[in-house]
Amino acid sequence: MAPLAVAGSKAGGFGFLAGGFDLANLDADLDEAASLLESANIRGPEGVLPIGVGFQNWGSDLKLAVAAIQKHPPAAAWFFAPRRLSDLLPWAKEIRAATGGRTKIWVQVGSVGQALEVAKTTKPDVLVLQGHDAGGHALAHSASVISLVPEVVDALAYEWLRIPVIAAGGISEGRGVAAALTLGASGVALGTRFLACKEATIAKGYQNEIVRVRDGGVSTVRSTLYDVLRGIMDWPKAYDGRGVANRSYLDAQAGMSEDENRELYREEMQKGDEGWGAEGRMTTYAGTGIGLVREVKSAEEIIKEISNDAMLALKKTVGRYSEKHVVFGKPPG
Amino acid sequence: MAPLAVAGSKAGGFGFLAGGFDLANLDADLDEAASLLESANIRGPEGVLPIGVGFQNWGSDLKLAVAAIQKHPPAAAWFFAPRRLSDLLPWAKEIRAATGGRTKIWVQVGSVGQALEVAKTTKPDVLVLQGHDAGGHALAHSASVISLVPEVVDALAYEWLRIPVIAAGGISEGRGVAAALTLGASGVALGTRFLACKEATIAKGYQNEIVRVRDGGVSTVRSTLYDVLRGIMDWPKAYDGRGVANRSYLDAQAGMSEDENRELYREEMQKGDEGWGAEGRMTTYAGTGIGLVREVKSAEEIIKEISNDAMLALKKTVGRYSEKHVVFGKPPG
Repeated sequence: MAPLAVAGSKAGGFGFLAGGFDLANLDADLDEAASLLESANIRGPEGVLPIGVGFQNWGSDLKLAVAAIQKHPPAAAWFFAPRRLSDLLPWAKEIRAATGGRTKIWVQVGSVGQALEVAKTTKPDVLVLQGHDAGGHALAHSASVISLVPEVVDALAYEWLRIPVIAAGGISEGRGVAAALTLGASGVALGTRFLACKEATIAKGYQNEIVRVRDGGVSTVRSTLYDVLRGIMDWPKAYDGRGVANRSYLDAQAGMSEDENRELYREEMQKGDEGWGAEGRMTTYAGTGIGLVREVKSAEEIIKEISNDAMLALKKTVGRYSEKHVVFGKPPG
Repeated sequence: MAPLAVAGSKAGGFGFLAGGFDLANLDADLDEAASLLESANIRGPEGVLPIGVGFQNWGSDLKLAVAAIQKHPPAAAWFFAPRRLSDLLPWAKEIRAATGGRTKIWVQVGSVGQALEVAKTTKPDVLVLQGHDAGGHALAHSASVISLVPEVVDALAYEWLRIPVIAAGGISEGRGVAAALTLGASGVALGTRFLACKEATIAKGYQNEIVRVRDGGVSTVRSTLYDVLRGIMDWPKAYDGRGVANRSYLDAQAGMSEDENRELYREEMQKGDEGWGAEGRMTTYAGTGIGLVREVKSAEEIIKEISNDAMLALKKTVGRYSEKHVVFGKPPG
């Protein structure tokens, strides 16, 4: 993951290492990132690494996190999925203490209520607002960024809480980035798009699926099945994961037992890249924006393309904004 | 519904009558709309009424639709939820024939696959793209507009199908409108916002809920329960409806039988406006944008406010677009 995160920051974005919940490799990953950044002669302010680290709070060890971060302080630590929001307090406190506040605290939430509670308690430097279209794990029950971002922005402003928000979920190209900024986000986080990135260290079979699959809202599903198959049973109840609806999912829908499905999944693992595909059983976590990802490119190409396309979309929209645009519904029913 | 539709078109938007599936009142509604428009001295081109009519195709009678439309041709007919997409063909053909093509055909879909199939077969004048945040009925399983709109726009362009798209679902104020246009929509349809409109002929209890409820992604749920309570059992299987999670919903989640829940719902109907509220059982269909609706206003005030706010959001975003905006995730997992 270090090459991807570094490539992102080199290209004018801001890359994150996925710490996940098993932090055994974090120290080595940060070592690798530090030397890649050193060779590229890129430094962050106050000696921090100009990358971030993502933590899955519910299953991971704060002591390991602090030790790794003390050695190579990253510019940001991204928190996600604590069992209780109050579990974030020691994390924020100890990580801030470990780097004298140089590592900024980002917290990912999925609702207005979570955003307000975290803003008042953890007092993060940044809130990441994750909408329902997001790939991988997220709140099973939430809005997409189209309403989540403006409602959180207004709720924070109403309480004089000045915290920038980053939008995540369903955004994989320039128009989505421009839309998120228009909704009030100060930035945008993209996951799925960078799975189809030359620097991403994922299986070729997984990457092929990201490029192949279309119609992202229909082709992907939110489910806990992909955790069940891997034997990861401890995610907090409010979460599930979005991935491509594959053979395992279709079999589960048709009534196959979890045991049989897990057994077939384990056999499929032997197939390597052949385990992915329309009839595959390997997991392709991805957001609904998967249908807009059509080509593997370098991190630099992706970031340049997205930045240009976002600006173009904004200018084009301002330019043609004189027509009648509001259609006045048909109330819901 | 006629006063709301007319007020919308008067104010510079484009209002729709909700024909729904019981078309018994459509003729009277169109009569009322025609005389309101006549008094306001507003005429559409070629003698059409400058409003549209929304049809729920699966349960409604094409003969009644054609008869009403022949008498007072509306500018648009909006189709939604046929049992099979091919069921739209006779609807489009007969309505076009009835008004010599003056009534334009709008078709609402919820996926890239549906959009392409309808574009090639029904050949509508407009496609409405309904995302997962929408209030009331929609595909149970779909993306939100953040990825649905750009993916459909690209898919149509790739096949040289030149059909303008309208975005719907989760949009209830100016930033959402601006975002949808940035995503590639030619216009935006708002339902929930206009439930809190002075001209809306809905129960006061329903309207109060629209203004009261916050955190739209958490407070609303997609469910078939609200159909069950009303005894409407025939919706095509792919659909459910988004509404505020009320006492009926919480009871159903806690295991209450459908029969008991329906019985309590019928008793609650006697309470009038008191049947709505945090502990109420009456249905509040609404999209996730409900949390952004804070005040009952006139159609004219709403449309002016949204248009101004949308333009402001776009200009502000273009103005500050020089910072680093792309955050480079943390791939989904």
